[in-house]
Amino acid sequence: MRDVLRDIFDDTAAARSALQYGPSEGDMLLRQRLCSHMALRGVRCEPANILLTSGAQQALNLVSEAFVDPDDTVLVQSPTYPGALQVFLAHGARLAGLDARTAAPSLIYAMSNFQNPTGVSLSLGQRQHLVALAHQLDTVLIEDDPYEALLYDGEALPSLLSIDVGEHSIEDARTLYFGTFSKSIAPGLRIGWVVGPALVVEKLALLKQTEDLQANSLAQAALGRLLAHGVEPFARPIQVAYRERRERMAEALRGEFGNRGAWSVPQGGFFFWLTLPMEIDTAAMLRHAAQLGVTYVPGIAFSHSGSGANTLRLSFSSAQPDRISEGVRRLAKAFDEHAS
Amino acid sequence: MRDVLRDIFDDTAAARSALQYGPSEGDMLLRQRLCSHMALRGVRCEPANILLTSGAQQALNLVSEAFVDPDDTVLVQSPTYPGALQVFLAHGARLAGLDARTAAPSLIYAMSNFQNPTGVSLSLGQRQHLVALAHQLDTVLIEDDPYEALLYDGEALPSLLSIDVGEHSIEDARTLYFGTFSKSIAPGLRIGWVVGPALVVEKLALLKQTEDLQANSLAQAALGRLLAHGVEPFARPIQVAYRERRERMAEALRGEFGNRGAWSVPQGGFFFWLTLPMEIDTAAMLRHAAQLGVTYVPGIAFSHSGSGANTLRLSFSSAQPDRISEGVRRLAKAFDEHAS
Repeated sequence: MRDVLRDIFDDTAAARSALQYGPSEGDMLLRQRLCSHMALRGVRCEPANILLTSGAQQALNLVSEAFVDPDDTVLVQSPTYPGALQVFLAHGARLAGLDARTAAPSLIYAMSNFQNPTGVSLSLGQRQHLVALAHQLDTVLIEDDPYEALLYDGEALPSLLSIDVGEHSIEDARTLYFGTFSKSIAPGLRIGWVVGPALVVEKLALLKQTEDLQANSLAQAALGRLLAHGVEPFARPIQVAYRERRERMAEALRGEFGNRGAWSVPQGGFFFWLTLPMEIDTAAMLRHAAQLGVTYVPGIAFSHSGSGANTLRLSFSSAQPDRISEGVRRLAKAFDEHAS
Repeated sequence: MRDVLRDIFDDTAAARSALQYGPSEGDMLLRQRLCSHMALRGVRCEPANILLTSGAQQALNLVSEAFVDPDDTVLVQSPTYPGALQVFLAHGARLAGLDARTAAPSLIYAMSNFQNPTGVSLSLGQRQHLVALAHQLDTVLIEDDPYEALLYDGEALPSLLSIDVGEHSIEDARTLYFGTFSKSIAPGLRIGWVVGPALVVEKLALLKQTEDLQANSLAQAALGRLLAHGVEPFARPIQVAYRERRERMAEALRGEFGNRGAWSVPQGGFFFWLTLPMEIDTAAMLRHAAQLGVTYVPGIAFSHSGSGANTLRLSFSSAQPDRISEGVRRLAKAFDEHAS
């Protein structure tokens, strides 16, 4: 990344355009690269099907702006990413679980891979069901896929969008795919992308123009150059580092919690989701944990309905392996103190 | 700019933080630099009074989000920046001129210096009046000041915010000042800033978090370094180049239009505003002009009320001086053809 940015600033013309205004839809080279990226993942599309956004967070905001009116229903996984719940609520939405019997939701929101916060991926059957549901209910299905590049073992499953495009076409798809470089390359660049029907992308680009004109040119120029060989060369070393951290957390949980809690080992992403006995309130337990120098996010922060008081999210992405073992040891101690 | 970016990528720690997530309010070093920048312009403030945005366009959007409900009134200059009108309308606002007798507008929107599109600045009296009006009506006054660094002659007048802070204090100010680096340094960086009461800044930062988390870290890091000696070292050479273009356009208009139109010579910024005889429709005239290879923006695009059909905006910022003379010559020809 640093070398590419240095190259750009060694090249007068490249530097000039990287500092200038560009199209609201985003840099053409980068959109072409993303078409290749999506094609390798079973989605054939054109640059007109791609909008570059100021991070995937903005994509959530633009799509809510386009499709959610006050009092509309948005169906979400439970638990799910609080940053998404916040956006939907800011647009006046009512939130309901995916199993709610709602005749006409405005949006369905799902993370297909290594979901935040549970670390769990949708099965192939669940994927097919969600795509069919979106068509049946005549609604928009957001596939938020920030962790896709962080697969540590097992096979990648087809994305919701690739299933949708396989059965219909990109222009008739109900799925809007959200990608980001924040987890695989660098969050500070603030570049995400949306893939969907050209008509929808055009509408979102108009909204984006009102919101902040365009994503920053410099990061787009850098990514366009960087992705000549795809995301894989960047993702591979990160996968190795994160896989080791995941192993360490899995071991520590087995050693410290045994059968006093339940979790599954994620195949990718950043998170373990720990379910403790029903009588434990993880929000209250956080004080004990903090006193012992360890922290986590209580499960209730991820719930649209206030459920999951006995759950919590652990992240293994940013700590060194030894710190992970020590952290889980302290967490178990906090649990002992709190439970007793 | 290029050198500073190269420096950042020669420095491992700097490169790392320039690629990472940062606070929603923005990079601390850059906010401190902006405090110095504002202090030189008569506004004493703290970093807590400053929010960095993804360009000034996002500032418009965040402030509308915070203060405008559907059917609220927003008072605007006539004519004014269409990108602002678009944002206010997107939030359901009714638009009215600054002279409208509205009891309780939600916002007042004004450009203090070398306004887009007229190139005219507010007089000292008008500035004092607007600040007093905002306090009297208990409303928020947006001071949008993108061209401030592009003063070609005459003295700078105090900003609305500096008048407001002089009479009250930054925490009791009704003015929110919008700055940007897009005109003085580089638009592709997409970095603007808002200055106002800390409580308002805090609220806007929360909205920004929902909208796109934060402005891009890389550009913020670069600007923090770049502004060690303020904006002036960057603005001076640009002022020289633009002043020459303004001279050329002023001469060309005198030579080609004589007394067949009215305009004033702007003291800064990018634009001349040309008023033609009442019977001329500049939107219709555009076809003649385009056939002759010259273009402009018809005045009606800048009006909240559909007035100004006989006006047009000329920009001298991006054309070489000789092209400016030739462009005005062709414009006069289009006018002759259209009028006859």
